Amino acid sequence: MRVLVPFEATRPKTRLEPVLDAAERTDFARAMLRDVLGAVLDAGHEPDVIATAPVSLAADLDADVPVAVDDRPLSAAVNARLDADAGAERPVGVVVADLALATAASARRLLDGDGGPRVVVAPGRGGGTNGLVVAHPDFRVDFHGISYRDHLAAARSVGADVRVVDSMRLSTDVDEPGDLAEVLLHGEGAAAAWLRAAGFELEERDGRVGVRRPD
Amino acid sequence: MRVLVPFEATRPKTRLEPVLDAAERTDFARAMLRDVLGAVLDAGHEPDVIATAPVSLAADLDADVPVAVDDRPLSAAVNARLDADAGAERPVGVVVADLALATAASARRLLDGDGGPRVVVAPGRGGGTNGLVVAHPDFRVDFHGISYRDHLAAARSVGADVRVVDSMRLSTDVDEPGDLAEVLLHGEGAAAAWLRAAGFELEERDGRVGVRRPD
Repeated sequence: MRVLVPFEATRPKTRLEPVLDAAERTDFARAMLRDVLGAVLDAGHEPDVIATAPVSLAADLDADVPVAVDDRPLSAAVNARLDADAGAERPVGVVVADLALATAASARRLLDGDGGPRVVVAPGRGGGTNGLVVAHPDFRVDFHGISYRDHLAAARSVGADVRVVDSMRLSTDVDEPGDLAEVLLHGEGAAAAWLRAAGFELEERDGRVGVRRPD
Repeated sequence: MRVLVPFEATRPKTRLEPVLDAAERTDFARAMLRDVLGAVLDAGHEPDVIATAPVSLAADLDADVPVAVDDRPLSAAVNARLDADAGAERPVGVVVADLALATAASARRLLDGDGGPRVVVAPGRGGGTNGLVVAHPDFRVDFHGISYRDHLAAARSVGADVRVVDSMRLSTDVDEPGDLAEVLLHGEGAAAAWLRAAGFELEERDGRVGVRRPD
């Protein structure tokens, strides 16, 4: 299956500003993208990066992954590729680029499945949507707001069967400093390795664990 | 399978103090316990509550769920029941009582499985452990600190095969005000109903969704 992977290449991961400078955020975002592409490829699917600016992936991956530059907002860029007028095939997958915990097994739980005019949704924490499989011709995405709830409603409104994927790995998009602890705990790829090389380590606190970066 | 469900009955959910008073925290904790017990029962297993003080569940559940009062710390109370000297059967499950998103399907992903001297772990966010299946005779629990990491190490040190359950529902224990948004988004049981009846609703914010409670 073709799997769209939208990537903010211009100014990625701004909410990590408290712990990473701009160059580091760019590097870390690229490491997460690499993990996501690797998971999709290892699951046997074909990722297609939609980036806001040119990105060269040759050094990151053995496989040749196409990159389309599209500076429209995320939802518009994805929907342009879902438009039937454009001769879009179905099903099409969508996976966000900051799933540093993604593995081939978790990607398969989203992307593999039976046929039919369905929509498969992998929720993100806080009401977001981290993955979709769109098999119904009339479904369009809207990542703004409480998109998980909105995508379920949109799928039902076009008469699509809905399946929700219950995956911690797919629900963990990495946006905020607290999310880095999950990467160190559960990440198996480039993003976790990048954080460790940058000096991040787990820090025990009351309640949930955090990260620290000793000098 | 017998599934231990430890329950803090004396002063539950103190980290929800910013949004719920003491009586509400008790009510809400009971609603979450009910959801967990219902999920375990519907999955075809036998929950056994270990409470720090007497709790009557008759009004909450159709089934007759035994409650043992044990005021030892969590890990000691669970390990007492894993001690081979006590003639403990294997496998034994452990599920924390604040999984307001638990469903029969997610409980089955933890509790159902093949045999062998294994340990199954359902990680919680922030390095915690929200569920275990203990089939190996020598494994003991320690919920203190970064227990997910410690449980994996402990399982390996006794030579147990380890399986990790990748479930957003099982990873979402409800401790902090921000977690209530997940209950409103994904909860299907008593805890979500309790929150709605108490006036909580989702609130869109920059980034992730939160909750508000209009007067």
